[in-house]
Amino acid sequence: MEQLSNIAIGIAGGTGYGAFELLRLLSGHCYGQVVTVSSQSAAGSPVTSKHPSLDGFYDLMFDAELDFDQLLEAERSVIFAALPHGASFELVSKIQERDPDGRIRVIDLSGDFRLKGRAAHETAYPDTPWAEELRQEFVFGLTEARRDQISSARFVANPGCYPTACSLATFPLIKAGHSGAINFDAKSGTSGAGRQAKEFTSHSRVNANFQAYNPLQHRHQPEIAETLGVEQLSFVPHLLPVARGILVSAYTTLSKPMTTEELLDEYREFYKDEPFVRVKDEPVDLAGVVGSNFCDISVATRGSQVVAMAAIDNLVKGMAGQAVQNMNVMFGLSERAGLWHPGIGLV
Amino acid sequence: MEQLSNIAIGIAGGTGYGAFELLRLLSGHCYGQVVTVSSQSAAGSPVTSKHPSLDGFYDLMFDAELDFDQLLEAERSVIFAALPHGASFELVSKIQERDPDGRIRVIDLSGDFRLKGRAAHETAYPDTPWAEELRQEFVFGLTEARRDQISSARFVANPGCYPTACSLATFPLIKAGHSGAINFDAKSGTSGAGRQAKEFTSHSRVNANFQAYNPLQHRHQPEIAETLGVEQLSFVPHLLPVARGILVSAYTTLSKPMTTEELLDEYREFYKDEPFVRVKDEPVDLAGVVGSNFCDISVATRGSQVVAMAAIDNLVKGMAGQAVQNMNVMFGLSERAGLWHPGIGLV
Amino acid sequence: MEQLSNIAIGIAGGTGYGAFELLRLLSGHCYGQVVTVSSQSAAGSPVTSKHPSLDGFYDLMFDAELDFDQLLEAERSVIFAALPHGASFELVSKIQERDPDGRIRVIDLSGDFRLKGRAAHETAYPDTPWAEELRQEFVFGLTEARRDQISSARFVANPGCYPTACSLATFPLIKAGHSGAINFDAKSGTSGAGRQAKEFTSHSRVNANFQAYNPLQHRHQPEIAETLGVEQLSFVPHLLPVARGILVSAYTTLSKPMTTEELLDEYREFYKDEPFVRVKDEPVDLAGVVGSNFCDISVATRGSQVVAMAAIDNLVKGMAGQAVQNMNVMFGLSERAGLWHPGIGLV
Amino acid sequence: MEQLSNIAIGIAGGTGYGAFELLRLLSGHCYGQVVTVSSQSAAGSPVTSKHPSLDGFYDLMFDAELDFDQLLEAERSVIFAALPHGASFELVSKIQERDPDGRIRVIDLSGDFRLKGRAAHETAYPDTPWAEELRQEFVFGLTEARRDQISSARFVANPGCYPTACSLATFPLIKAGHSGAINFDAKSGTSGAGRQAKEFTSHSRVNANFQAYNPLQHRHQPEIAETLGVEQLSFVPHLLPVARGILVSAYTTLSKPMTTEELLDEYREFYKDEPFVRVKDEPVDLAGVVGSNFCDISVATRGSQVVAMAAIDNLVKGMAGQAVQNMNVMFGLSERAGLWHPGIGLV
Repeated sequence: MEQLSNIAIGIAGGTGYGAFELLRLLSGHCYGQVVTVSSQSAAGSPVTSKHPSLDGFYDLMFDAELDFDQLLEAERSVIFAALPHGASFELVSKIQERDPDGRIRVIDLSGDFRLKGRAAHETAYPDTPWAEELRQEFVFGLTEARRDQISSARFVANPGCYPTACSLATFPLIKAGHSGAINFDAKSGTSGAGRQAKEFTSHSRVNANFQAYNPLQHRHQPEIAETLGVEQLSFVPHLLPVARGILVSAYTTLSKPMTTEELLDEYREFYKDEPFVRVKDEPVDLAGVVGSNFCDISVATRGSQVVAMAAIDNLVKGMAGQAVQNMNVMFGLSERAGLWHPGIGLV
Repeated sequence: MEQLSNIAIGIAGGTGYGAFELLRLLSGHCYGQVVTVSSQSAAGSPVTSKHPSLDGFYDLMFDAELDFDQLLEAERSVIFAALPHGASFELVSKIQERDPDGRIRVIDLSGDFRLKGRAAHETAYPDTPWAEELRQEFVFGLTEARRDQISSARFVANPGCYPTACSLATFPLIKAGHSGAINFDAKSGTSGAGRQAKEFTSHSRVNANFQAYNPLQHRHQPEIAETLGVEQLSFVPHLLPVARGILVSAYTTLSKPMTTEELLDEYREFYKDEPFVRVKDEPVDLAGVVGSNFCDISVATRGSQVVAMAAIDNLVKGMAGQAVQNMNVMFGLSERAGLWHPGIGLV
Repeated sequence: MEQLSNIAIGIAGGTGYGAFELLRLLSGHCYGQVVTVSSQSAAGSPVTSKHPSLDGFYDLMFDAELDFDQLLEAERSVIFAALPHGASFELVSKIQERDPDGRIRVIDLSGDFRLKGRAAHETAYPDTPWAEELRQEFVFGLTEARRDQISSARFVANPGCYPTACSLATFPLIKAGHSGAINFDAKSGTSGAGRQAKEFTSHSRVNANFQAYNPLQHRHQPEIAETLGVEQLSFVPHLLPVARGILVSAYTTLSKPMTTEELLDEYREFYKDEPFVRVKDEPVDLAGVVGSNFCDISVATRGSQVVAMAAIDNLVKGMAGQAVQNMNVMFGLSERAGLWHPGIGLV
Repeated sequence: MEQLSNIAIGIAGGTGYGAFELLRLLSGHCYGQVVTVSSQSAAGSPVTSKHPSLDGFYDLMFDAELDFDQLLEAERSVIFAALPHGASFELVSKIQERDPDGRIRVIDLSGDFRLKGRAAHETAYPDTPWAEELRQEFVFGLTEARRDQISSARFVANPGCYPTACSLATFPLIKAGHSGAINFDAKSGTSGAGRQAKEFTSHSRVNANFQAYNPLQHRHQPEIAETLGVEQLSFVPHLLPVARGILVSAYTTLSKPMTTEELLDEYREFYKDEPFVRVKDEPVDLAGVVGSNFCDISVATRGSQVVAMAAIDNLVKGMAGQAVQNMNVMFGLSERAGLWHPGIGLV
């Protein structure tokens, strides 16, 4: 593989948490090199001025917009769009204009192009145009579910953090025909709300607190439904007093009673070739995954009742890590490149 | 009421969190006075040596065992048993011996006498004798459900923290015949595990972490089933990185579709005379109740799906506060005595 | 005291944390009643809409501006100004206009009128006019230091949170002539920064984090210097990942070597008549004071080195609680009224 | 370098946080391979049973004692002693017996062999023999200060977490002759207390809390004094409600007034060749270093007053990371091997 040149990487929306996490992970990637990071508000200042923990790893300045020339010159190049929901549409249009031959691959971290159902999209993302033709070029990037399509895609719509955890928690149940209606009780750290200051995620309000938000009305619900192909589900997200991490507990009914160990075996078999899914005997926790790209999963049964639990770092497997995993798939690299390290364990 | 003498109060198991919270709440109670606090390990040292935030409020020393003489001399007296599960049986036997006429009322904070079903009891509390005759004297002390029985009881079995929140969250649904199977996803702070040091609740392990424990196997499950009179339920507790607070999200199906506002109206009607249950338009949070005896409840619907959410302080409404509320009921006081203050709001 | 009518209370700046804490504490005050709470942004909506944990304790609506008629009609009345720094000047001017006879007492929680040195004021609060005549009417309201002046003052400038803790920690050293230069290392929870959302105090940034801010340049430094009458001091505040609480560790040198116990005795003697200062054998902590008006203090020596440590709840003794304590002094009530309860202990 | 065989690594005390962090860091080290991990209590069970976040990275079982045969067979080998204070002495004696030729290098993470002054040692570690001859073979392993000696040492005494931060914060001041007496106000996360459950570090007690402990009496004080060659210092550690991270604020007086920028320039010059020390314009924070081996430092001055602030991850630069850095020095590797990655940024 040494004969291939590095992959030139551009990151749009460079000051947010998504960009931070991409930069953090890519600082240890052997085959990719970030060459341009854009931010209108911070243009001209060092990338590390907004991400001081990366001092020593990047000498780049923020560009007002992505440096397409560098990206087009490279043999292989990719853009990560880490913009707020609604802003990717414009960026993707510009990419199509600047790169009509499709030389640059694009991984969009926003929700703009995830949904395939028009009604669902228009409810969840009313400010983003439907743009049917363009949308059809996007592959939904849940790596474990769409590896083949991702490998040849020009455009990948990286999944939402909650849908990633909810889907991985319940795929084996659904594929085995076990499940009826599913109740997803999801809990996320505050970094999922992004870097911009809001009273809802201010420290004084969140610290030592806990609550649901948008119960049964969150816009990730249709994304979960599409990904799983299940209509009968409820989804309630809650805000945890932690910065990183999502844990989902999914409740449903098995088609027949099973022991916990029997069901664990089904899960282990289902995920046996997945590098980033670990099936665990004990209830999973955030500490096992924070900082890493792993999705840890466990289950428990009581007769035909079942709860399936999945833990991810919302910024890694739930966002930037899965995006890098998809980049690896798109360029024929080992999926582990830049991602094969354990989490921080104690946080 | 002034002509009545104070209620003499004894607290057994005086060094733990239950005793702390009783002492904290009773320091502001106008009609009760703590006269004896027992602890074998701390006997002879000041009560405030183990509870330094109470400096200035108590001059008592720990007694090796409760001072029954003082309690029997008083016109009115009560013992709060704040012992570990399994230890209340012995204490209650001693009380019966020392107080054969039943002059002292007893409120037991442990799980020893809560369950009425023998099989459930023997599974949940295998180390506590069934003791049928004695058990029949105990009234289950969920104030909102058993007020009349509590008022005349000699022995009250104070409810568990999770059953309190789960029951109050779903009573209106069950009474209205709405609900089928219920999935209770419960989250608790670490003080629920008591004061004794354990690796599972060490700070380094819990901080910024989150996980389920004993999924579908927790011993509060049969208590919830008995209280609600519902067999079809699943219960999964999780450990929050907070010290105080429980939030339960209960998922079930309505017998017919309802709007959130319609269901809120049913809840408001159901709880309209309850001083310590507040039905809220917005999703409830721990910050609204921590430090107080309130149970805040909200609901959301989507068609016939419903989630009901309840928040309590596990040490107050989930333990010591409800015990004081029961004491108030037992002695004909206002239920609000010593408890009518808002929570701390920001924690 | 029963023959006296209640004190009518107005609170300006009603949506912030200062107002919240005043409302929380005053809900249990036997001699005061809040009659008007002003907020321009929230005028017309219920006070509890911004402070939902107070549901059941207040039926008031926010007024666009304080209802002076009610305050002037009452026999006794007081306004708490809980406005941002810079806004109190205008309010106080209006009060003088509406109440030329000085019937309403005023307690200002901002920093606008605290400093007596003009140069210090103009550096620390460049946007607030010096207003010398008006300023002379203000008494600096550190209760333990200025009780007599406070009792007869029309206008009280309530101390800053850090100066309260720093001063109480070191008064006994200074009065005994012990101390040379003092280094104050102060740590505060995030509620000290107020309710408005800022990136610096967003949860994702503060959680599990810790850092100094404005080292040696914070505007509380001159207030500490004035209060203590000490010029040689350094002051460095740090941001703790907690919502409530300040702990100050003050380092200086004794005029002669002393044991810890000898110095503790001096402290106990110095504060023996103070209801809200507790001198402790063991290093004090936030848990001992959070939710309460106490200032807990301890010391340790090694030869002539000394560290004095003080803990307060920044929203109570550091702001609203001390303001109520001052109100009590101003109206000849027990200082304990509305404030005599222990903290929450476990937070 | 490819022609050299891997370094065979043994870890004694394999279940604790020190061993966890060594295993975490070494999982990404290109030239070292862990071949034996010892634990008496966990012998025979998989290493990942105690460190589940490392699933997929280690297939080893815990050995009852280190497998010396493997270590002696390897061309290059090293033992990390991650035992409680007091237990290293026995292990080192056994190593001398099993490896009389000194083929295995040893890095001891305990305090047993750090101090060179006998009186200080006997006060700080009364249970550890002085063992003068053996002690003389130990080099104190603060990499930035003793690189040359470390490179040729058989035995390295890895520094304490606090001494690492305190020393790096103030070396430039001391070397420039600036400083008089120094007050070190230090704050640490709970992982510094180790994995064993204690009430002092239980979550309910630490959460949202903060306090000093062992003020002026901590046993790291003599280690700081020896490392800096300074007698006039005070040291007060505090317990932060975080799992990882130490921040030290050091107060002293400059020999002449300097601006912050002038002093920063001195610091930058002093540390210009150090890969793991970053001098920062802005006050440093834990988030900048947690998970990484960096020590971030900043300063502020006001006339001749100065505060120097240093932040490290206590488990990395304060323990296991510095141990790996020392291993790299001892074996002639790049100091960055296995350690060159940024911290996690948001925790």
